[in-house]
Amino acid sequence: MSLIVQKYGGTSVGNPERILNVAKRVIATQEAGHDVVVVVSAMSGVTDGLIKLARQCSSNPTEREMDVLLATGEQTTIALTAMAINGLGKKAVSLTGAQAGIITDGVHTKAKIANITPKQIHAHLKNGNIVIVAGFQGETTDGRITTLGRGGSDLTAIAIAAAIKADICQIYTDVDGVYTCDPRVVPTARKIDEISYEEMLEMASSGSKVMQSRSVEFAKKFGVIFEVRSSFNNNPGTIVKEETKNMENVVVRGVSIEKNQAKVTIRQVPDRPGTAAKIFSALAGANLSVDMIVQSDSVGDTNDISFTLNKDDLTKTKKSMESVMKEIGAKEMTTEEGIAKLSIVGIGMRSHSGVAAKLFEAMAAGGINIQMISTSEIKTAVIIDETKINEAAVLAHDAFGLSGKV
Amino acid sequence: MSLIVQKYGGTSVGNPERILNVAKRVIATQEAGHDVVVVVSAMSGVTDGLIKLARQCSSNPTEREMDVLLATGEQTTIALTAMAINGLGKKAVSLTGAQAGIITDGVHTKAKIANITPKQIHAHLKNGNIVIVAGFQGETTDGRITTLGRGGSDLTAIAIAAAIKADICQIYTDVDGVYTCDPRVVPTARKIDEISYEEMLEMASSGSKVMQSRSVEFAKKFGVIFEVRSSFNNNPGTIVKEETKNMENVVVRGVSIEKNQAKVTIRQVPDRPGTAAKIFSALAGANLSVDMIVQSDSVGDTNDISFTLNKDDLTKTKKSMESVMKEIGAKEMTTEEGIAKLSIVGIGMRSHSGVAAKLFEAMAAGGINIQMISTSEIKTAVIIDETKINEAAVLAHDAFGLSGKV
Repeated sequence: MSLIVQKYGGTSVGNPERILNVAKRVIATQEAGHDVVVVVSAMSGVTDGLIKLARQCSSNPTEREMDVLLATGEQTTIALTAMAINGLGKKAVSLTGAQAGIITDGVHTKAKIANITPKQIHAHLKNGNIVIVAGFQGETTDGRITTLGRGGSDLTAIAIAAAIKADICQIYTDVDGVYTCDPRVVPTARKIDEISYEEMLEMASSGSKVMQSRSVEFAKKFGVIFEVRSSFNNNPGTIVKEETKNMENVVVRGVSIEKNQAKVTIRQVPDRPGTAAKIFSALAGANLSVDMIVQSDSVGDTNDISFTLNKDDLTKTKKSMESVMKEIGAKEMTTEEGIAKLSIVGIGMRSHSGVAAKLFEAMAAGGINIQMISTSEIKTAVIIDETKINEAAVLAHDAFGLSGKV
Repeated sequence: MSLIVQKYGGTSVGNPERILNVAKRVIATQEAGHDVVVVVSAMSGVTDGLIKLARQCSSNPTEREMDVLLATGEQTTIALTAMAINGLGKKAVSLTGAQAGIITDGVHTKAKIANITPKQIHAHLKNGNIVIVAGFQGETTDGRITTLGRGGSDLTAIAIAAAIKADICQIYTDVDGVYTCDPRVVPTARKIDEISYEEMLEMASSGSKVMQSRSVEFAKKFGVIFEVRSSFNNNPGTIVKEETKNMENVVVRGVSIEKNQAKVTIRQVPDRPGTAAKIFSALAGANLSVDMIVQSDSVGDTNDISFTLNKDDLTKTKKSMESVMKEIGAKEMTTEEGIAKLSIVGIGMRSHSGVAAKLFEAMAAGGINIQMISTSEIKTAVIIDETKINEAAVLAHDAFGLSGKV
């Protein structure tokens, strides 16, 4: 008998019929002899509806109250899911985040989990219940309702799995698992059976939308083994866990692509300590998330600093750079849209040489110009023309033999 | 400076525009120099929508989970109301029933308030906040969410007013107050300025739909003065409070009517101790609410027992009587629909004689036959043909001089 945490996202519980399907799936897990804790999101569309209501009541809703409002979304789903299971003849009880003992800090709308006291979860499991917990929410030590921000329900599931020492945490979603590349871009992409936390993190931060980085980081930190799988079929998904010796044999685990990127270059930045710090502090202060950073070798006593970020942040970035450029004495700023990022990820890179070269060759073979390069221990990323990104993904995927069977 | 509790029902907070109106009204109260606690219901339609969702997930939803589900309705409104007030530049915080310290027993879907610990309410008031509390809900000492059943938000408001020793509790609704009779039936009906708890209770239990009896009883028990008034205008409403000497000068405060009644007569019930008890225990056991009871004087060694109840309960009643009739040896059961109840209510009746006679004369003058009579210290009620009820209401209203000015 195992202790299993299952998490179902908004699409999986999007209407009563789907909630009943989830109920059956959960019951089947229990009948297979396991203890089950289920974490659910708000039904798809509900959160957006609540945000719309909020904006009709205030142009700038208070974050404290936004949390009180949004928390009702998951509370609705836990009640409906527990009812559905009860209606099918099995014992189930619902718990809000607060009732489940999820204590967070006080940063409304993007709170961090401080600790979990799963007393109620254990008590209800002991009485033979399936326990349904509201994802995405918690409470502060002084009793305020908080929410965890984007991807919060995944985080709830992983954190509960850690707190109750579950054998596995299953993240049910609308895709079959993590793929070697987006199958809509690379038709020969395959589902990955096993992937290390590190690789999953690099995939997430380079555009694979399956899970938010912080949930993966939390799982890594507490050694929670989790599986990303579909709630619409019974196919096994992708297991994410600590790397094994075996995993290193695969040089590249997957290819991620990220569109809608923009490049900003600050030209002729005086080459003295502290100038780069001023640029990136200003960006951080404006809450702008920079991805790749490249500083050219200095020419005379200046150099050029380039960075990429999401295209939508470009206007805000230009504005925040104006005063900084004056302050540091930089000459010019150029920006470029219509670029995209391609990343190859794999822990095998650590022990295999020539990986970057192979990627560059593949791009060259397709006549694709590389504008920027960035590498980490287990990732190599390039910035290219956005119109070439799909073609580039196929080339990279083939070059590293990711198509076909394992 | 007073401490005021205001309660707004589902219609008053039915959409964002109305919530903004409530926000303005609340702010105006605070700006007049008062501390304000606001109790709100779910937006109209929301509770019905949730019940529909529940039925789609289970044909017989668990009551524990029904409470978790329904509590989201009021939680949504408190957040939106607090946001609206914040958006208008004033400090406001929302509290769920549990956060407001409302402790109930564990009878899900119709819990009773056990006690209130208004620590948070006091703390937020002290910090200059308008405090918005979710009506209709509380929690058990072991942390389960409960709801208070029909009229629960009124009860929350009255109970909080008692707990924080508010100067007045204003119940905002879609009518201007308590009327001498339903104005749709008696066009000359007037709004009553002041009414005693006792009279309000008799009016409520005899068909006036303004408030549930248990809220009035709670107010009476704890001496909470409350006012029923409209959220759509600024007219003063009806003050409900302990009776004063002055109130006794009015013999009849108002006329209530209740349609959709049915009469059941059990004939030739053996005249021995315990037979009536058997009949009414069976009805209570089937959760059937009986209104008027009349036992005829015995003829030989049997008598007839008649009672009235809501027409919708008739089928269930017939069924529950079958075995009882055999057990007690009664001969026959007859039922009659198409009857209605008219009640006149007033504490002045205690000190004025001839009130019942005056009512019977008024009915007789209109050629209206009285089928049953029931009296209490401050009420006289008659059962008549349902088709005559509106005409009877006008006659009674005129006979006791309720039309025109006070």
